[in-house]
Amino acid sequence: MSNIRINGERLWDSLMEMARIGATEKGGVCRLALTDLDRQGRDLFVKWAKEAGCTITVDRMGNIFARREGRNPSLPPVMTGSHLDSQPTGGRFDGVYGVLAGLEVLRTLNDLNYETEAPVEVAVWTNEEGSRFAPAMVASGVFAGVFDLDYGLSRADLDGKTMGQELERIGYAGDQPVGKPVGAYFEAHIEQGPILEAEGKTIGIVTHAQGQRWYEVVLTGQEAHAGPTPMPIRRDALLGAAKIVQAVNKIGLDNAPVACATVGLMQVHPNSRNVIPGRVFFTIDLRHPDDDVLSKMDRELRAAIDEVVADGRLEAKVEQIFYYAPVPFEEGCVNAVRAATAAAGFSNRDIVSGAGHDACYLAKVAPTGMIFIPCIDGISHNEIEDAKPEWVAAGAEVLLGAMLERANAGSGAAADAA
Amino acid sequence: MSNIRINGERLWDSLMEMARIGATEKGGVCRLALTDLDRQGRDLFVKWAKEAGCTITVDRMGNIFARREGRNPSLPPVMTGSHLDSQPTGGRFDGVYGVLAGLEVLRTLNDLNYETEAPVEVAVWTNEEGSRFAPAMVASGVFAGVFDLDYGLSRADLDGKTMGQELERIGYAGDQPVGKPVGAYFEAHIEQGPILEAEGKTIGIVTHAQGQRWYEVVLTGQEAHAGPTPMPIRRDALLGAAKIVQAVNKIGLDNAPVACATVGLMQVHPNSRNVIPGRVFFTIDLRHPDDDVLSKMDRELRAAIDEVVADGRLEAKVEQIFYYAPVPFEEGCVNAVRAATAAAGFSNRDIVSGAGHDACYLAKVAPTGMIFIPCIDGISHNEIEDAKPEWVAAGAEVLLGAMLERANAGSGAAADAA
Repeated sequence: MSNIRINGERLWDSLMEMARIGATEKGGVCRLALTDLDRQGRDLFVKWAKEAGCTITVDRMGNIFARREGRNPSLPPVMTGSHLDSQPTGGRFDGVYGVLAGLEVLRTLNDLNYETEAPVEVAVWTNEEGSRFAPAMVASGVFAGVFDLDYGLSRADLDGKTMGQELERIGYAGDQPVGKPVGAYFEAHIEQGPILEAEGKTIGIVTHAQGQRWYEVVLTGQEAHAGPTPMPIRRDALLGAAKIVQAVNKIGLDNAPVACATVGLMQVHPNSRNVIPGRVFFTIDLRHPDDDVLSKMDRELRAAIDEVVADGRLEAKVEQIFYYAPVPFEEGCVNAVRAATAAAGFSNRDIVSGAGHDACYLAKVAPTGMIFIPCIDGISHNEIEDAKPEWVAAGAEVLLGAMLERANAGSGAAADAA
Repeated sequence: MSNIRINGERLWDSLMEMARIGATEKGGVCRLALTDLDRQGRDLFVKWAKEAGCTITVDRMGNIFARREGRNPSLPPVMTGSHLDSQPTGGRFDGVYGVLAGLEVLRTLNDLNYETEAPVEVAVWTNEEGSRFAPAMVASGVFAGVFDLDYGLSRADLDGKTMGQELERIGYAGDQPVGKPVGAYFEAHIEQGPILEAEGKTIGIVTHAQGQRWYEVVLTGQEAHAGPTPMPIRRDALLGAAKIVQAVNKIGLDNAPVACATVGLMQVHPNSRNVIPGRVFFTIDLRHPDDDVLSKMDRELRAAIDEVVADGRLEAKVEQIFYYAPVPFEEGCVNAVRAATAAAGFSNRDIVSGAGHDACYLAKVAPTGMIFIPCIDGISHNEIEDAKPEWVAAGAEVLLGAMLERANAGSGAAADAA
């Protein structure tokens, strides 16, 4: 397979052409799920896929599947894909890269008149971002049986419009049932973090997606005048919150190298310059790809909070508001990515996905793997999100190699093509 | 002097009657400076003072002086007083206590037909709170030469009405020049803090008012996604702010027992659950009655911030937005309070005023002292502010004794009255 190359220039041009739909002044993209701009992006993809000879199906959650037949149509397809909807101030690569890298795989197979054993499909999952309609990844979630179809179709935006209504409106309320057999699923994505670029690695072989635990904490002390209140008798909720912020950071560092622990949101009350804060609300985000370690981090957090509360004579209300289990990607798929990377000779490292992706839900119903490429300064969810053409091409190269390995698995075609 | 007693019941009744003007549902007072309610409160005081045989003068800042002649009218008066204006959700004692305790002193001297050597005056200072018109203590500030008269009269509220206009409107734009000789000034006030009640002391002998330094800090790091960003490379502005909150607390504790150090206000940006905070704005309030120690606290603060910035690879913009020098009260006046307290046999302790008072400005132009009484749970600037009748009476007792010592200083009357 090492003599098959994707067309990097064609892929880059397609990315830039798609980026014109919903382009923002700062060079990014605003193409919210199920808006007219989303429709235009979908239409463009469908046009390209048809030009590439694919058959198109759309399921009832608006997920689009562009199918290239294989020698054996009854085998479950080897699938790739991602999403075309964006953040309000999103970038040109987040999600789009995975879709168009998949399209480039199909175009390359066409160039070579290459027949795979199993069919190959490129999927466009509806509303991955969860920006206009919460929650994120809802359509791949319905596909994987995590959510009911009714739940998915009834998700509403701030104006009360539902996903079902908007799918009808833009003409993507398909009739295919949601969910079908998938032989293997691969997703190429920008890393959205700084590791690959910092280490000079072109490819991230994604072994896991992190599990996450999110908490809300209300710390209560005693509001008092900053002037006449002696230090030792204070019950300062902000001082307590500050100690917990440091404890959270320590939990992240103590569970290195892949643990993440963050306090992102904090509200201080009464938030007056000369009043000792009597109440603080804040959130905690813990992540680790190993569920046992994530549970250990939860215990460490609760112990740290208990200590701060006792020390400061405070009260704490601690609520874990959600939990996503870590997702280990299937060994065969991970190895397919590894082999394709080695065959192409790209610098690489194993990596854990810090963010959630449609692949995380697909992993529940099919062997799944992910491929990361670097992004500039690790920036994403930001209009200045950017990636180098050579990284974009490399990721698509690896995607092609991994997909071919699984699409030809068990056939002689793998040996023939090598 | 130990056989002269004020009438505690008369004082309490006057306090409760004054509290009906601007009374709130929760048992407090809303009587903002130069509103019609403030006028009513002033009119009531003036009525009572005239009934007590006083002559009334009003200066151009609306400060009211109720004068009881002494044997030697050419001596500068021994003065007491405080303010009748309140916070929007103020209490019945803050300021009012000092005014009516002074009135009770005059009424008691009348009861006894007592002639002091020097004249005795009770002052009502305009707009001490600085709530409707900033800054606080502006009228005593003009009296003490801290502010120009024009500055004082031109202070405007949020509707653009000036103090000058409002003084005219309510009929308290007096014609007396602002500022005159004062022989000694005493002010009785609730502590507005928890120390006296907690220690079971009836009287606080106020030796100093704290100096204050207020700061604004902007800490800048790097905003990034909480999932894919490894712990060691983060530039987390909230983590930095948390370390500084703890350092501020340590500065307060290290300069015990009277230092205060507080972070009251904090704003986190972007304040999103899964984004590492890239910027935090917060305020710092440092207080100490010794200016050298206050300067040392400033140096400790800046050193602590420098260390946190270097450690977290952050940037900090630190601005001291104001500085009030500590006010040591005059030894003779402090001793007069001490002697009167001892003569009456009240449990007592030396104490530092954590908050600002008109007395702080009077101290620039006259020997000044303050007398504190406890308040329930140390609560003030709150409608539930409260004090026990026995404390109220005790403070007025001490005020009488201290004022008599200074009003008779150098005459034989002090020995005669003892």
